[in-house]
Parts: sequence; C-alpha cells; structure tokens
Amino acid sequence: MTGKVYIVGAGPGDPELLTVKALKAIEIADVVLYDRLVGRKIEEMLRNMGKEIIYVGKNSCENGAERQKNINELMVKLAKEGKIVVRLKGGDPFVFGRGGEEIEYLIKNDVPFEVIPGLSSVIAVPTSANIPLTHKGVSSTIFVITGRNLEDIGKSALNGTIVVLMGKERIREICKRLIELGKSPKTPVAVIENGTLDDQKVYYGNLENIGDVVEKNVKGVALIVVGEVVELGRKFNSRRVSFSQTSSQPQ
Amino acid sequence: MTGKVYIVGAGPGDPELLTVKALKAIEIADVVLYDRLVGRKIEEMLRNMGKEIIYVGKNSCENGAERQKNINELMVKLAKEGKIVVRLKGGDPFVFGRGGEEIEYLIKNDVPFEVIPGLSSVIAVPTSANIPLTHKGVSSTIFVITGRNLEDIGKSALNGTIVVLMGKERIREICKRLIELGKSPKTPVAVIENGTLDDQKVYYGNLENIGDVVEKNVKGVALIVVGEVVELGRKFNSRRVSFSQTSSQPQ
Repeated sequence: MTGKVYIVGAGPGDPELLTVKALKAIEIADVVLYDRLVGRKIEEMLRNMGKEIIYVGKNSCENGAERQKNINELMVKLAKEGKIVVRLKGGDPFVFGRGGEEIEYLIKNDVPFEVIPGLSSVIAVPTSANIPLTHKGVSSTIFVITGRNLEDIGKSALNGTIVVLMGKERIREICKRLIELGKSPKTPVAVIENGTLDDQKVYYGNLENIGDVVEKNVKGVALIVVGEVVELGRKFNSRRVSFSQTSSQPQ
Repeated sequence: MTGKVYIVGAGPGDPELLTVKALKAIEIADVVLYDRLVGRKIEEMLRNMGKEIIYVGKNSCENGAERQKNINELMVKLAKEGKIVVRLKGGDPFVFGRGGEEIEYLIKNDVPFEVIPGLSSVIAVPTSANIPLTHKGVSSTIFVITGRNLEDIGKSALNGTIVVLMGKERIREICKRLIELGKSPKTPVAVIENGTLDDQKVYYGNLENIGDVVEKNVKGVALIVVGEVVELGRKFNSRRVSFSQTSSQPQ
C-alpha cells in the first residue's frame, strides 16, 4: 500500500517555533526530506531524534529545476514503498515555498498527502524582532513580495507595511523603486538577519541609507520590512532587550 | 519584583497549531489571559492543564476601547504582583492583533515583556484549506487587508493573491470594488469558515457570485482569499479529502 507524504512547514528556523502538529508528523515519519532553509538547529534536532533524514537541498551538480524534479521523484518513490514521508520546508509550505508544485506531482502520481502550515518568515521574523506588521493608526495592510518581482510593487501598497523576502541582493533597486513611486526617502526600513535564530540581528535605516548598511553588514538570510511600523518595532525592541536581562524566560 | 508578560500568538484555533515555544510559555505562566479569538479548543486545553485562566474577551458591558484598557491594566497589575502572565492572542499578536498597543502600555508601566509569534490566520487558514498563497506562474505577491479598510485596495495588488480578514459582512462591497478596479467578475474566490477547526468549511465561487454563497451559508469566522490560486486550492483540496480517508494521520 502507498504511504503518505506530509508537506510540513518548519517555521523560520528556531526549533521551538515548530508547531505541535509538525512535531507529531515528524515523530510518525519513516523518513524526513529537508533542505538548507529549515536551518541548522532543526537539522540538529532531527538528528537527535534519531530520524532517517535525507538532505535534498542545493548541491553543486543540479540546477533549481533538476533539484525540484529529484525531490518530487524521491517523495513518490519513498511513498510507493509504503513509507510515511515528511517533506519539511522552511517557513510555510505555501508561501514562496513551492509546496504547490510538489503537491501537483504527488497528485499526478496518486500519492496521498496532507499539508501542515508553518510559521512563515513573512510574519514570524518581524514579530520576533518586535516589529508589528499592523498597528492602529500606523498601518492596516501588509504587502508581501520577493526581491525577484520588483515590478509588482505598485502605488496602492504604499500606505501600509511592505515585506520583502529574498531582497538582500537587490535592496538598492527596491529602495529606489519605492522612492520613485512616491515614498519618502526617510521611510523607515528594518533588515532582519538570521531571524529567530540565536544570531538574529536587526539593522535599522531608511530608504535612502539602508543599502549601505546592508552591504557593509549583512551576510546571512535577510528579510526586509518597509514602513512606519519599523519605528515602533525599534522602540519595542530596545525596551525588550534591556528587560529580558533581568527576567525569567521559558527554558 | 515585577514579573513578566508574554504576548503569545495562539495560532488559528487548532491547539496542535500552537508552537512549542507558546506551550512552554503557557506552562511556566502563573496566569493566562485569553479571549474569544483563541477558540474553544485552546480554551479547553488550558482548562485541562489546570491553569489559572482569565477571560478578557467581549462582554456586554464594555466597548472595544474600554475592554482594551481593562486588559492593559489587568496585565500590569498581575505583573506588578510578580506574576508570569501569558496574554494569549488568536493568530499572531502583531497581525491585526493589537499586540503593539498592549506593549506600548507595558512599556509605559515598566513591565518586562516578550513577544512569541503565532501562526496568523492570514497564512495558516489558506494553507490548511490547501490554497497556496503563492504559486509559480500564478501568483508571486500577497496583499493582506481587512474588510474595514476597503479603500486600501488599489490596482497594484490586483495581480497577486488578496487575503481579506474580517470581510464577511462586507463581502459584496469587496467584490464590487475589485471588479471596479479591473478584476474579472469570474476571478475565483474562496471563503474559509472556522479555519483549522473540526468544522472548517471551504466555499468556492467568484467575485460575481460569492456574496450569495456567503449570505446563505457562512455563520462562523471567515477568511476570504481572492485570486487564481483558489482554483489550485480547490483541486488540491478535493484530492486530499479523498486520500485522507484511507491513510494514516498523526494522532
């Protein structure tokens, strides 16, 4: 009998930001397919659980399309052997995660599947950096894009908060485009590096100067937040840091 | 010594969609403040854990502003008594959750705090209904609004996926506005009622006819997704349902 594939969101990297449901799926899995985006700490957790794990992330011999094809075929092969497979994906499987493409392939091959949502970086990373994506009187909309589709930024998104995934390399172009569309060059921008991980760093600036800041400092995975909410986040974050030094934390 | 307040996202309602971190905070809490939005099943879980819980949701005697003021004051009072307080909020605390307002009040009163992100309904509900918010060649942007700020829907959001929270009562106006802005009346729309709960239901339609469908059928909390990804979700969902009847599930 054919097994089943769970397409599971692993969240933004901190193993404690896995959901209970994701953990339960991992527990019953015969094998877990994971890639670089789930992060080192979750990989470590999987190893400590004694799980059979298979790395399906980038390597030097495949391009993106080949890699996705290999992942698809491996999922189907394992499920056809009767295995319970967890395909663990960074963030949420359906937010810039190609989860839909994997499901299309599973359907074509008559493999049962189930999707388990995860904390998308889009929201969890700003929240972990204490930036409220919405705030009464400041922003009541969220527009999410990637650095790969700048042409999709239009005027109507400009009043609210803008979240840019995979935008580090094109940050200067992004800022330029937003200024051209009418945003003030002084609009606050935060760049969150390695969000939710131990080495999370938040850089603050504005549309005019954040490009320099990023170029000089940011080496890791980065998420960009543009909008007035960034100023609130900066205030909240400074207060949180000073407080947590003297207060209890969940262990 | 002053205690601490954890502002914790409870996710969309299914207790298994709580994060490990949220559960740990609840475990160490002396008291949990919750409201209706965390859902019956999580309330039940809190009771079963033997926690001291305080309902701070709507009642007939307060308006919204009074209620928020009372919540703020109660959090500060409990923390000043030295207690570890969990303020449990539906979804993510910073996505239409007024988490920022609560933090402003905590800061003003010198109360230490920490924010723990949760699965926002914005993403978790569509994913649970098998609707990919983004999909290669179909949509590469997400625009999130509430039914209360229709004027924020502008043309630039029209190419991607639109998610509307709290839009059930104004669904006809929302559809009308989108058609006026240039969307085809046949654009697919899904309305997900009681997302992630046992009685989750997904209604499919388009901008022209979904208003009638909602008026006739939808009684519970509803989230609206507009865009071509809805068709994919419909296909995925129909396949998943037939499969899960014959396959294993995490217990």
